[in-house]
Amino acid sequence: MKGKIKAGIIGGAGYTGGETLRLLLNHPNVELIFIQSRSHAGKPVTSTHPDLIGETELVYSAGSNQAVDVLFLCLSHGESKIFIVENKFPDNTRIIDLGNDFRLGDSAAGREFVYGLPEFQREKIKLAKNIANPGCFATCIQLGLLPLAKAGLLKEVHTTGITGSTGAGQKLQDTTHFSWRVNNISAYKTLTHQHLGEINQTLKALQSNFSEEVNFIPWRGDFTRGIFVTSVLESALSLSEANTLYKEYYASHPFTHVIDEMIDLKQVVNTNKCLVQLEKVGKKLVIHSITDNLLKGASGQAIQNMNLMFGLDESVGLKLKSTVF
Amino acid sequence: MKGKIKAGIIGGAGYTGGETLRLLLNHPNVELIFIQSRSHAGKPVTSTHPDLIGETELVYSAGSNQAVDVLFLCLSHGESKIFIVENKFPDNTRIIDLGNDFRLGDSAAGREFVYGLPEFQREKIKLAKNIANPGCFATCIQLGLLPLAKAGLLKEVHTTGITGSTGAGQKLQDTTHFSWRVNNISAYKTLTHQHLGEINQTLKALQSNFSEEVNFIPWRGDFTRGIFVTSVLESALSLSEANTLYKEYYASHPFTHVIDEMIDLKQVVNTNKCLVQLEKVGKKLVIHSITDNLLKGASGQAIQNMNLMFGLDESVGLKLKSTVF
Amino acid sequence: MKGKIKAGIIGGAGYTGGETLRLLLNHPNVELIFIQSRSHAGKPVTSTHPDLIGETELVYSAGSNQAVDVLFLCLSHGESKIFIVENKFPDNTRIIDLGNDFRLGDSAAGREFVYGLPEFQREKIKLAKNIANPGCFATCIQLGLLPLAKAGLLKEVHTTGITGSTGAGQKLQDTTHFSWRVNNISAYKTLTHQHLGEINQTLKALQSNFSEEVNFIPWRGDFTRGIFVTSVLESALSLSEANTLYKEYYASHPFTHVIDEMIDLKQVVNTNKCLVQLEKVGKKLVIHSITDNLLKGASGQAIQNMNLMFGLDESVGLKLKSTVF
Amino acid sequence: MKGKIKAGIIGGAGYTGGETLRLLLNHPNVELIFIQSRSHAGKPVTSTHPDLIGETELVYSAGSNQAVDVLFLCLSHGESKIFIVENKFPDNTRIIDLGNDFRLGDSAAGREFVYGLPEFQREKIKLAKNIANPGCFATCIQLGLLPLAKAGLLKEVHTTGITGSTGAGQKLQDTTHFSWRVNNISAYKTLTHQHLGEINQTLKALQSNFSEEVNFIPWRGDFTRGIFVTSVLESALSLSEANTLYKEYYASHPFTHVIDEMIDLKQVVNTNKCLVQLEKVGKKLVIHSITDNLLKGASGQAIQNMNLMFGLDESVGLKLKSTVF
Repeated sequence: MKGKIKAGIIGGAGYTGGETLRLLLNHPNVELIFIQSRSHAGKPVTSTHPDLIGETELVYSAGSNQAVDVLFLCLSHGESKIFIVENKFPDNTRIIDLGNDFRLGDSAAGREFVYGLPEFQREKIKLAKNIANPGCFATCIQLGLLPLAKAGLLKEVHTTGITGSTGAGQKLQDTTHFSWRVNNISAYKTLTHQHLGEINQTLKALQSNFSEEVNFIPWRGDFTRGIFVTSVLESALSLSEANTLYKEYYASHPFTHVIDEMIDLKQVVNTNKCLVQLEKVGKKLVIHSITDNLLKGASGQAIQNMNLMFGLDESVGLKLKSTVF
Repeated sequence: MKGKIKAGIIGGAGYTGGETLRLLLNHPNVELIFIQSRSHAGKPVTSTHPDLIGETELVYSAGSNQAVDVLFLCLSHGESKIFIVENKFPDNTRIIDLGNDFRLGDSAAGREFVYGLPEFQREKIKLAKNIANPGCFATCIQLGLLPLAKAGLLKEVHTTGITGSTGAGQKLQDTTHFSWRVNNISAYKTLTHQHLGEINQTLKALQSNFSEEVNFIPWRGDFTRGIFVTSVLESALSLSEANTLYKEYYASHPFTHVIDEMIDLKQVVNTNKCLVQLEKVGKKLVIHSITDNLLKGASGQAIQNMNLMFGLDESVGLKLKSTVF
Repeated sequence: MKGKIKAGIIGGAGYTGGETLRLLLNHPNVELIFIQSRSHAGKPVTSTHPDLIGETELVYSAGSNQAVDVLFLCLSHGESKIFIVENKFPDNTRIIDLGNDFRLGDSAAGREFVYGLPEFQREKIKLAKNIANPGCFATCIQLGLLPLAKAGLLKEVHTTGITGSTGAGQKLQDTTHFSWRVNNISAYKTLTHQHLGEINQTLKALQSNFSEEVNFIPWRGDFTRGIFVTSVLESALSLSEANTLYKEYYASHPFTHVIDEMIDLKQVVNTNKCLVQLEKVGKKLVIHSITDNLLKGASGQAIQNMNLMFGLDESVGLKLKSTVF
Repeated sequence: MKGKIKAGIIGGAGYTGGETLRLLLNHPNVELIFIQSRSHAGKPVTSTHPDLIGETELVYSAGSNQAVDVLFLCLSHGESKIFIVENKFPDNTRIIDLGNDFRLGDSAAGREFVYGLPEFQREKIKLAKNIANPGCFATCIQLGLLPLAKAGLLKEVHTTGITGSTGAGQKLQDTTHFSWRVNNISAYKTLTHQHLGEINQTLKALQSNFSEEVNFIPWRGDFTRGIFVTSVLESALSLSEANTLYKEYYASHPFTHVIDEMIDLKQVVNTNKCLVQLEKVGKKLVIHSITDNLLKGASGQAIQNMNLMFGLDESVGLKLKSTVF
């Protein structure tokens, strides 16, 4: 396409809206046309994202502007569907929904959504008009299992995942009170996390006979960013065979890397990367995978999908300096 | 006194109420008669303090019981005065107010309050009928300055203090959101903190010509418990003279220790102690002092005051295992 | 027994030695005769445990004193066996080893060791002369599984556990560097943790036909104290049946409580408690269990064992105020 | 200059070497020719900086390569001087030293060094051949005081600053042990911090009659990145006058911003920014300033200096996404 991509953000004051904004401000091929926020309309974006002081003079709009090429919906779950029904955009405006309204095949306002996990279906994404951006846990768990599913080798999986507090959003809650959460660990939504729907949908699409469960135990961690997942299953593959399978699968994917050393969460914090590490002990294959829940698990992946839809290199605007420490 | 001290707590569901409860449950000379909570009446105290599961079957009461020897008021600032006006207790019921309603000499319902800093006026406390328990920052700052004031050596002081998040209470607030507060530092109430009133009141009582300021910069820390204070002032004392002055002052006080090595906050967390360390560089005397804001800075000091009022050893029920790590 | 129990600590400068010291100092039935440290002999214990300033004037000894009723070995793994071979103590001196040298049935210097998990074999412990104190992860995992094993209902288990940094000891290591560990999560010893030996030994003792694995994934957490474990297995029990089984099993055990609400780690930090919570989803029974790795997982349990061996109430000296926040 | 700037890094395995590497890898005008590390020669840089997996195949060199336009010295204090004496580089190779060897006017190997604080002397830096990059605390404190010194309004200053653990470097130390540092605060180098030399040198250069002290209390914080500084002094300026003075001073400087709202440390973490906020209470002017100690306080400022020396826009390669949370 000629010129810059004109982009708009709906729901810019929250965590995913803010991260999408941070990425778009530094994206060389994008011009941010507007950023909407119902609760902060008329205020500068720096009033809610003060780390951007000196980088932008943008002011939140109350409404949206139809003259955009791409629209990022950064709304609470359930609100995206309502929004696109109530707000008509031109047919050629791409929509990327960061919520969970369209991940399981739902459509609205005549729009069909493609599940936006590039490592699963990059070619479909390139042709998509609308994207349902995957959930944060869903991304990290699937990236640990995709190669096995593609090879038809998936069996019952036991998965534990721990997430940073930003996964719970900006709203004040008992479980995000500092005095409670710091130095604390807790479990929630045991075996019933809402991301299991999209996870199973993908795995069955790759391995049609997969009827076993992904037994997923989510934990709340006492950090803000990142997801660490360990999945365990029986496998006849040797470690070497498994590594070959995984490395071949991800060879052409710039953000997902299979590595041989033990990984730790901070290797990916503040980046769009996913690192995967395999171990084999006895009959059990163990897969560790890590992502930043707000980037590869949300806004970063949304930009990656935008890049693919507009024919750009997948990683434009996503070469981020990790925080490391 | 014969038999156990009958105690009641008003406002048991908050942080200071909960800590008072934890201390009274293990106090060998106290029988806890009731613990009141407007918002949780009828529920077990373990519903709000689940760490006490297995230790108590107490249920929050809606009202209070007059047949107590001592009453701990663990209310929001401003509510204590209203409470004692609306709820008459027998004259011989001692009241210990953990709020700030009576620290500056106010009285209500015919009750006069003694400022309950044992290292300042232990003998008065022993005879008191009602105690205004000091503020958390006020305690830690005063314990760093009392010996100088007593000796008439106080000059203008520059003080910086950092506090844990529990100092801000249990209510959900932007500044106690985990995602914001962790790894973060911020300033608030610069040079205007409400504890300056009680600090200056004590210092002037000891050194009548003290008219200089305590310039106090409070910071919010990214931890839950504890206060670290550094005060700087000009002094003609040598380090050795200053140490002698301080060690003599605190010699008979079981919870405040003057030590020669560099101190760190976790040495006092989960205890009723205050550690003080002095340094002298050029003309400047530097005093570091540390306390746990919920114990020596609130509930622990309240129990210490109760012990004194009832003729017990000051430290009964307060030999607490520090968390250390 | 008449008079106080005379106790000695070998290896007092480390974490478990320090916690044992802190507990013994406040134990009403114990007189601490000596605390030994090779590296700190001649120095006050407050030089390594400065939080004890004001509580003890003890000085580390170079050697040990045979006139003790009980000896706590707080040494690195492998050193206990060497110690008791090289240092003869009277036959009636009880030895409690906090290391892992004797947990799998090894003996030395003519001493047989009883595995000191009170919830597993309290009566044996009461009669024991020497105790092999369980490992921290081993304690928390077993307390989540004992009732099932006793009922013969154990099947293959998938367990994930996360531990505080104090589990890695005091030695400076890459994985305990603050800049690395804070906000970080990592896996280690996947499916091969050394505590699996003692775990399987207990489970098979209770359920002789248990030949399935405990698949244990240990994670390093970014906090200092505590272990959170989730175990998952298939079970025909309903939630109600499982709760009944567990509550009956632990009814007479003062430190382990089965509760119905979601648990979080800080409920047990700085206490000797274990909380267990059950969930049932589909065919899967899920057991969450939490402990403080240095107390119920080490020094607290050692004192509990001492109490049992000397005919005291199990919980004397162990009514600790939790840190809560 | 034509083509890319050829750069080399000496001492690439530490924190500042690693951050310099991360910035140079994404700098559009730089080609990184080599990265040296004595201890890791021959190993891939991802062996010490695993967050860079997928971004670079660079291997540490044992020695250096003279064919570079700019050399970054990321060595321990004292080693830079030795290095440039023992290793001759062409005269037109610019050297940027991140250590403290040349900040107070020392020269070596015929090279004179310009103190590299752009907000103090940008024009000199543009013409410099060699740069002494400022210290982390020194940067944050000076940026809070420069406008006053320039206006001749500086008086005795009381400053407290708290720093993240990365300021203490990568070496394992007692004060960077996770179990000790987390949730902890401590003071060190009270009124004697080594950065006072360069701070006073700058302030006196701007205000020749400044002979009063900067009384600086440094604290260790329980976070990894960032410095928060509060300085207090008497001033006749109103808040409005002070804000005008500061805003005019920094108007042309892209990384330092004077803002009216209360600031918090995470607003600048993982960026090259400095935020400054002023308050006036009574006669006292209070200045809060914040920076990331590894970026504006070290590697980011080094790149900023490089940009200036090579005629580039000051902010090229430094538009970093903040971590925010």
